[in-house]
Amino acid sequence: MEKQIERLQRIAAAQAGSLSLGGGLPADELFPRAALARAFVRAMREPQASALQYAWPEGRQALREWIAVRLRARGAAVGADDVIVTSGAQQALAIAAQLCFRRGDAVGTDRETYPAALDLFRTRGGLLRAGWEGDVRCFYAMPAIGNPRSRPMAPGDRERLCARELHVVEDDAYAELRFDGRATRPLIADHRDKVWQVGSFSKTLCPGLRVGWLVPPPAWKERALEVKHASDLQASSLGQTVLELFLAEDDFEARLERARRFYAARSARLLRAVRRHLPGWRCDEPEGGFALFLESDEPGDDLALLEAATKNGVSFDPGRAFRPDNAAAPLALRLCFSYVRARDLDEGVRRLARAWDEYRRRRDEASAAAVW
Amino acid sequence: MEKQIERLQRIAAAQAGSLSLGGGLPADELFPRAALARAFVRAMREPQASALQYAWPEGRQALREWIAVRLRARGAAVGADDVIVTSGAQQALAIAAQLCFRRGDAVGTDRETYPAALDLFRTRGGLLRAGWEGDVRCFYAMPAIGNPRSRPMAPGDRERLCARELHVVEDDAYAELRFDGRATRPLIADHRDKVWQVGSFSKTLCPGLRVGWLVPPPAWKERALEVKHASDLQASSLGQTVLELFLAEDDFEARLERARRFYAARSARLLRAVRRHLPGWRCDEPEGGFALFLESDEPGDDLALLEAATKNGVSFDPGRAFRPDNAAAPLALRLCFSYVRARDLDEGVRRLARAWDEYRRRRDEASAAAVW
Repeated sequence: MEKQIERLQRIAAAQAGSLSLGGGLPADELFPRAALARAFVRAMREPQASALQYAWPEGRQALREWIAVRLRARGAAVGADDVIVTSGAQQALAIAAQLCFRRGDAVGTDRETYPAALDLFRTRGGLLRAGWEGDVRCFYAMPAIGNPRSRPMAPGDRERLCARELHVVEDDAYAELRFDGRATRPLIADHRDKVWQVGSFSKTLCPGLRVGWLVPPPAWKERALEVKHASDLQASSLGQTVLELFLAEDDFEARLERARRFYAARSARLLRAVRRHLPGWRCDEPEGGFALFLESDEPGDDLALLEAATKNGVSFDPGRAFRPDNAAAPLALRLCFSYVRARDLDEGVRRLARAWDEYRRRRDEASAAAVW
Repeated sequence: MEKQIERLQRIAAAQAGSLSLGGGLPADELFPRAALARAFVRAMREPQASALQYAWPEGRQALREWIAVRLRARGAAVGADDVIVTSGAQQALAIAAQLCFRRGDAVGTDRETYPAALDLFRTRGGLLRAGWEGDVRCFYAMPAIGNPRSRPMAPGDRERLCARELHVVEDDAYAELRFDGRATRPLIADHRDKVWQVGSFSKTLCPGLRVGWLVPPPAWKERALEVKHASDLQASSLGQTVLELFLAEDDFEARLERARRFYAARSARLLRAVRRHLPGWRCDEPEGGFALFLESDEPGDDLALLEAATKNGVSFDPGRAFRPDNAAAPLALRLCFSYVRARDLDEGVRRLARAWDEYRRRRDEASAAAVW
């Protein structure tokens, strides 16, 4: 199934003029290229060029301190020594997964969630369970802003989750991209002993640096660091150094403010286009993040729809990829407003509406033929 | 044990004026800082700034092609599509380890080998076996140039190893740094179906980019790519792009030639100093790589010697860290000639000789006291 989705998305990516509403990529218009280039040149002038050398597995001290300061501002009692810099948030998830459950253990998630986390838990032999039922060893959650629904976890659910005896992996990738700019209190602030806090610069700054972080429960810090070291020795010295030098000069709060306004405007624009051109689909209004999640009660197959969409010059992420059991129903798809240019959002949705019409016509013809 | 070694090495690293003969770091004098800075600035000027964006898990096409060309030049029938770019060679080892054996399986290695590979196999539940005896599921080898002995595997051993039914993880980190410049034939050239070839830019260029590669057996390519994606999505776009643009302009063969001469001269200098100041220690002459491996038949504890050395302003890698069973005997230590300045090699060995004298005196006093 994943292979089929990937094949279709690679076809779409290779098509000139195709619009990608999938992928969860940040807008490259927001990348601070010149400032990063200046930071790189400064890094090359350091006497030891530590950006090019090996470094300790936990990551650079000033970068860990910067991360801890931001978490403290949101209410979590975290110091620089509690933070492990990782090769993106995905590696933080992989370290947590290696320590939080074993092959054959049940792992809980939301009914829809981040596909690469689901793939990771599957490759590690976790038995995925959607929702709140049953005993699980570990629960993966995105409390601040979820993916793909781009909405926060309900306050009651936060408390219900943390009242249980389990590891909680808190993926905070979109936490700083709430459109209202409110700094929400992370789960780790109140449940330090069971929460594995995972964060990233991929959404707020850029993914190419591959710098994220993990704050494991204190009792697990040493083992998490061993797993980190065994995994790839350390996060990129280059990415960390460039980031550290960049952050020392940057007004990151102002940058986030711009990014929130930017994505909020895109979100509103995509939602308008969807309500106009795809009126039969349900969709909640995002409170942050990068995407809309569309659902329909009509019968249909999201992969076949993606194939039709690709032929019409647009792509999206099929809804089943977000489901722990890969269920195709209800028919659903994720549309990202984060990556394509604003003017292309409308055109992308028009193409998708065309593909949907074609798909429905063929579907209805096929079922009419079946009746005959 | 590892914690104790790490603690001592961190103390040494924090001491002003301390000379590190441990760690396996390349010489920062060889880092092409200006050329890398130019490549970075070029990357920031690309229309899409792909260096800052997400990319496919297998890595950049031109970089994979470059790697495949070099492997083909050494006799291996490898194409760009066979190569997975990894977050350093350590991640390539971690992917191979995840697929080549399961918790409780026997994993074979040389009698002394790369400590981070041993740590990795331990964290994954492999039962380490030194040498050639017994059935193992997987064998980890450094055929071209070994670590810590800096010598190639004997030709007979290569054939004996590959005649067996097992996975062979071929770590080629130092293969391009043979002092005689000879391009040796990798195991993968003759045993494509069982060899997992692992390579790195960390020794030939610089480690901070965190770019290495894995060429798995064809039957394992898809699963290896899934594990790679689950581990951290992709290697750093930044590191890959800078490297690709750098390599397109660089005379890499001339760079390797300079590096080989540089390290060969350092090796000879360290070996002379050792033979002069530490005459009781056995040491083979390196044929490449970064280090000497010293052994002694005297009783002694390498960790206690490291503690004495640290007080004398020099550090090294304790021999037991290279042994699958962490055996302390025979007393051994690895001295790297790669990192400290040439003039400091002599001074480092003099300090070590002083520490060794102190250590022996105390040891003999303690055993005399024990007799009384």
